[in-house]
Amino acid sequence: MKSIHIDYEMAEATLAEADARAGEADAAVAKLYEKDMAFTGWVDYAAHFPEDELSRIERTAAEIAGKCDAFVVIGIGGSYLGARAALSFIDRPDSKKPGAWPEVFFAGFNVSGTYHQRLLDKLEGRDVCVIVISKSGGTLEPSVAFLTLKNYLYNKYGQAGAHERIYAITDAKSGKLKAEADANGYASFVLPSDIGGRYSVLSPVGLLPLAAAGLDIRQMLSGAASAEEPGLVAAAKRFACVRAVLEGQKTVETVSFFDPSVEDFTAWVLQLFGESEGKDGRGVFPAPVGISRDLHSLGQFLQEGRQIFYETLLFVEDPTADITIEGADAGDYAGRSYSEFARAVLEGMAKAHRGVDIPIIRVYIPDNSAYSFGQLVYVFELTCAVTGLLMGVDPFNQPGVEAYKKGMLDYLAQT
Amino acid sequence: MKSIHIDYEMAEATLAEADARAGEADAAVAKLYEKDMAFTGWVDYAAHFPEDELSRIERTAAEIAGKCDAFVVIGIGGSYLGARAALSFIDRPDSKKPGAWPEVFFAGFNVSGTYHQRLLDKLEGRDVCVIVISKSGGTLEPSVAFLTLKNYLYNKYGQAGAHERIYAITDAKSGKLKAEADANGYASFVLPSDIGGRYSVLSPVGLLPLAAAGLDIRQMLSGAASAEEPGLVAAAKRFACVRAVLEGQKTVETVSFFDPSVEDFTAWVLQLFGESEGKDGRGVFPAPVGISRDLHSLGQFLQEGRQIFYETLLFVEDPTADITIEGADAGDYAGRSYSEFARAVLEGMAKAHRGVDIPIIRVYIPDNSAYSFGQLVYVFELTCAVTGLLMGVDPFNQPGVEAYKKGMLDYLAQT
Repeated sequence: MKSIHIDYEMAEATLAEADARAGEADAAVAKLYEKDMAFTGWVDYAAHFPEDELSRIERTAAEIAGKCDAFVVIGIGGSYLGARAALSFIDRPDSKKPGAWPEVFFAGFNVSGTYHQRLLDKLEGRDVCVIVISKSGGTLEPSVAFLTLKNYLYNKYGQAGAHERIYAITDAKSGKLKAEADANGYASFVLPSDIGGRYSVLSPVGLLPLAAAGLDIRQMLSGAASAEEPGLVAAAKRFACVRAVLEGQKTVETVSFFDPSVEDFTAWVLQLFGESEGKDGRGVFPAPVGISRDLHSLGQFLQEGRQIFYETLLFVEDPTADITIEGADAGDYAGRSYSEFARAVLEGMAKAHRGVDIPIIRVYIPDNSAYSFGQLVYVFELTCAVTGLLMGVDPFNQPGVEAYKKGMLDYLAQT
Repeated sequence: MKSIHIDYEMAEATLAEADARAGEADAAVAKLYEKDMAFTGWVDYAAHFPEDELSRIERTAAEIAGKCDAFVVIGIGGSYLGARAALSFIDRPDSKKPGAWPEVFFAGFNVSGTYHQRLLDKLEGRDVCVIVISKSGGTLEPSVAFLTLKNYLYNKYGQAGAHERIYAITDAKSGKLKAEADANGYASFVLPSDIGGRYSVLSPVGLLPLAAAGLDIRQMLSGAASAEEPGLVAAAKRFACVRAVLEGQKTVETVSFFDPSVEDFTAWVLQLFGESEGKDGRGVFPAPVGISRDLHSLGQFLQEGRQIFYETLLFVEDPTADITIEGADAGDYAGRSYSEFARAVLEGMAKAHRGVDIPIIRVYIPDNSAYSFGQLVYVFELTCAVTGLLMGVDPFNQPGVEAYKKGMLDYLAQT
């Protein structure tokens, strides 16, 4: 199968400096594979996924798909961004059949009454299940979303009926959600204690909802396992070295997607990079750019504004669907296809940005398959972890997230 | 009616420096209102919208709504971001009735075969119209989307039937699309020559699709006209002075929305700011942040990463829907409502960010009405234009956008 490959266009001195750090990157990868620090459970998880756990996920997913035509995934940050990215990215053979699989909604990442009311309106007249994802069960946003949805299920199915429609992914032993799941008899899965939220999409956190939505999670795991092969590990190491060097030169990394199917994956990347690397006064701020959309907006800034960027471009080489332009009005475009235009946009943009010396990293993604998605996730996870270690920060903690939580709870206590 | 208001939390020296520029801001506003430069047609457009044009937009919109249950708006940049922002933001009294108004899709801002195939799949079995928006008719992305959709309409309705389902918004006199609209008899509207794309949402560009989707465009125009009153002009001027001063201190402006209904408006702001101010090696790069979502991702970076930010927060004060938390499990949250939690998140985040000296601008939006949307659009347009003039750049051109177009056409010519 074709694999992800990564090309670089930037000053030779930058690449030379990056390549001079290859030994450090080797040491970082060795440290990760030895699990010589907390939260490194993901490094070999896909390749060694326990078959009994995987089978139980698939059986439970089939049960969910049989029971409802819509389900709500409740979670914040890494508890939903990965599943959303996969749903947008991966094409299914039966994607044309509306209703073949339940529709997926997300909640728990905001405290908007408008959002939740609109969500409840969309669920009207449908059979609904809920998958709630929280390590502790204590975070405010998913807690109140879960209370709202639980109330909705209680009114609709009664308490016992509702409990059969709630699935929990939580800590193995402790926490509010674990206690509630045990008391109410929710089917539940363990959120592995050595895998952090933003590295969790290939755990039950992502796999259960994705399987229930009809995606091939075995292919996804195979793709991720394939990225543990030396060639892709080497690619991730070089990507990390280049990013670590650029961190000394630039303050913003634009992460650009050309195909809208990659937009939600981009959001997942932003969390991964931002939360892993933005600490100790360090890091390059990751910002999303949609192509061609933003070439008619932020493109102006990239071309002629303050030069604070480097670019990471996400390009799907062999998209699922291509369309050839036909018709009497087609003129110069007649016989050309979308995939040709996409290449032209990529090359046109790269040429324009080379002209103003923006460093460019091109990540070529083979296709929109579940396998490629798994591979992509792993390459980015490894790249991010190695970049953090090269920068000298812990890529797996997020101490800064507590500050707003504390401020919020203080405010609630006073009002 | 309640109006937008804007609060500032930052160093007193920064605010003093901003207030010292008030005279310059007065001069900038005067220059704009005298239309003493190109592309200033928007400054009094909403307040003086010609009644005959508005009536024709409403009649045509009613015709579109009667003819189809789905329509596709084809445009790039300012030709679609404003309409999309309004559709997400504005609540309609009958929003609960699916099918009361046609569903709106967008195309023309990417060259993805996957995207267009998925779009065509969604249109299957539905009655469809197309609104195509382009000044010249020559830009690649909307041109190929239009060719694809036109082919689809031809196959479905025949050529004559299709022409009755195509609506064009284009130049008054010249260009490929104008010629085609005349030849094929499309109902068409004029894209005002003195209003640029990113300032065009309150022209036919936004008003026709929004009216066809059932929104109250007269309320929207009233809201925009209300923002020409001295109080709101003064608010925009101060906002611009603060932004101009912060441009000397920071490299990234995060634009944060608390309610998901404001997410697409945020994307419109990014275009407005990025394309207007990012030139001559200047500008602060605008990046979107979704709250609470990104407090569990980029929030880490904001709190503890490199301090390159100031923040513009978009907060809806009186959201359309609120939900009170109830139920036996509600614990401490019982009797509390989403709107209280939203305030707590706002105050918690502000406190956390004050603690690390991030300058904060709070934009309070009264509600999700069409009136507030119009007011919001005008306040941001005026703020952006004045900021550009204070920086000494032309906020209405976008010379940098041509570079990728040229590179793209060169590539196509060679392949």
